[in-house]
Amino acid sequence: MNQERYQRQAILKGFGEEGQAKLAKASVLVIGAGGLGVPVLMYLNAMGVGTLGIVDNDSVSISNLHRQVIYTEKQVGQSKVAAIKEKLKAQNSSTSIHVYHTFLNTSNALEIIEKYDLVVDASDNFPTRYLVNDTCVVLKKPLVYGALHGFEGQVSVFNFNNGPTYRCLYPTMPKPNEVPNCNEHGVLGILPGIIGNLQALEAVKVIAGIGDVLSGIVLLYDGLTQRVQRIKFDVKLENLNIRALAKSYDFQCDVPIKSVEAIAFNHILVDNDLELIDVRSRKEFKNSHLKGAKNIPLDLLKDHTDSIDLTKPVYLICQSGIRSQKAILLLQELFPKSEFINVVGGMNQINSYANTH
Amino acid sequence: MNQERYQRQAILKGFGEEGQAKLAKASVLVIGAGGLGVPVLMYLNAMGVGTLGIVDNDSVSISNLHRQVIYTEKQVGQSKVAAIKEKLKAQNSSTSIHVYHTFLNTSNALEIIEKYDLVVDASDNFPTRYLVNDTCVVLKKPLVYGALHGFEGQVSVFNFNNGPTYRCLYPTMPKPNEVPNCNEHGVLGILPGIIGNLQALEAVKVIAGIGDVLSGIVLLYDGLTQRVQRIKFDVKLENLNIRALAKSYDFQCDVPIKSVEAIAFNHILVDNDLELIDVRSRKEFKNSHLKGAKNIPLDLLKDHTDSIDLTKPVYLICQSGIRSQKAILLLQELFPKSEFINVVGGMNQINSYANTH
Repeated sequence: MNQERYQRQAILKGFGEEGQAKLAKASVLVIGAGGLGVPVLMYLNAMGVGTLGIVDNDSVSISNLHRQVIYTEKQVGQSKVAAIKEKLKAQNSSTSIHVYHTFLNTSNALEIIEKYDLVVDASDNFPTRYLVNDTCVVLKKPLVYGALHGFEGQVSVFNFNNGPTYRCLYPTMPKPNEVPNCNEHGVLGILPGIIGNLQALEAVKVIAGIGDVLSGIVLLYDGLTQRVQRIKFDVKLENLNIRALAKSYDFQCDVPIKSVEAIAFNHILVDNDLELIDVRSRKEFKNSHLKGAKNIPLDLLKDHTDSIDLTKPVYLICQSGIRSQKAILLLQELFPKSEFINVVGGMNQINSYANTH
Repeated sequence: MNQERYQRQAILKGFGEEGQAKLAKASVLVIGAGGLGVPVLMYLNAMGVGTLGIVDNDSVSISNLHRQVIYTEKQVGQSKVAAIKEKLKAQNSSTSIHVYHTFLNTSNALEIIEKYDLVVDASDNFPTRYLVNDTCVVLKKPLVYGALHGFEGQVSVFNFNNGPTYRCLYPTMPKPNEVPNCNEHGVLGILPGIIGNLQALEAVKVIAGIGDVLSGIVLLYDGLTQRVQRIKFDVKLENLNIRALAKSYDFQCDVPIKSVEAIAFNHILVDNDLELIDVRSRKEFKNSHLKGAKNIPLDLLKDHTDSIDLTKPVYLICQSGIRSQKAILLLQELFPKSEFINVVGGMNQINSYANTH
């Protein structure tokens, strides 16, 4: 059956049965089963990559479905790793699939990544990207990178044959207030499909040893114009000499920020006398919000602080916890004596908790 | 639910709720539910295009699964339109989906295409491309084109705001012996994913009125190098003045070729004394072939005609019926007095018949 299954690929000149055999022997770890991870996993699974690992801690939510095309309406509320494993198995029962229902962190990254030949970073945040990069450097694993912003995306391959790494392209992690925010800017459903597929192709090229791998080149893709730029960048030797992970990969803030996990916040809300400010847009707020929350969109916050009761502890919430963090940096400057607490994970975490409990 | 479902798209600047509303009102017809059609349909369905039409006459075969990622192993043997409708409905139950279990032909093209705002050509052969183009010109529908060859693909948008058409890019249909053959050359599973996604994006841009649509430009994509070329081409007014379809869109041959449908051939084989030559590669032949067939690969045929018994009617078969047609053109020149018959649809048709009966 498998010979017939991959026949159309195995007859391709320059790929052939040799390429197919290399895919079958390969093991690929995909970090994130979201907008980028879904197309990467669908195609690597279909094409016959023998072993796939998937790291994701989220559940499927209704607002994922416009771009994460493998999930069905019935799977909303399920963990993504369980939902995607079921779909991938039905598509290709011969793939060996290992799922890790967790966030990648400094305690588990080395142990998980060590087991794989190649890593695809399909995550959506800077701390994870630096953590994945450093782990791949320590373990000498090639890393296929992809990222999105609005109508644009970028793709590259790091740490391939002693080529440059993520840190050679982006030496230091941005501060939270410099970070473009997906929840704020939005994403057109098809964009992660395009970027994820380009990542899948680069993974196949690395495994099969075909074509010119995007090592030392970052591809900048603009969907609105269908124009592609290729930016070359050089290896910096100190970035290849990482021998251990950093202690922490959190965003570095100049001023410490108090925070509480959104899930815990569910209980605090019931028990305490507090001020809760939701800094999302009017539209997002109207869509769904926590009881008792006041809506002051982030871009209006500076001029509307008079409506905040600063005598109570002030909790800041947004969709994912990034805008609320920016809001706190702003408020701490204006009111250094008041207490501001960030609701980490934001409405996303609260919704995913609500869906699964 | 729908507001939350498309929230991440509707907040995207330059797309917004206006763009989302345009998708919901739009109707898109996709010709072909294969390598290109699958990703086009998955993403347009997920993103909220209100009405989707799908034209396909094939059944799901095991050799489709390496690139047609929506189908499952259990669906092998089912008609593609039924199989894909089931999957798309589970992903987004609010899309109105209409399927046409037929080949597009001169009798049904106008009637089917008339009902839609936009057509995506995800077919794999020249006769269909010219037929789709001419129908879109007659009915004044924009047409999103995609095609594949080996590690390369191309994308363009035709007939958009009086822009150029497929005939402005490729004025005349090639002869069968000039046609690159997918079954011969093979296709890497991820390639139609990339090209199909670029088509889906162009469809969204046309519908929502965003970005620079690829009108008058054909994008040439090379997966091995990740390089993209943009070739400009001009409108030729005579190509916009088509007012009716041609009588036939079959390949034009200088010499008439006798032919038999592969399905009918199943019976002929049992009853008749004949010579059956399979012109596929040794590998394809070894994989599966009809009882009694002799294997002479097309590129060796010229030097191995002595093993053909020309006293009997000689049937030529390959995977899809293209190479066998080329073989006949060659043999007719060498042996003008012998009888050669092409097995139309080739092993593909025989396999799909075997799977469903």
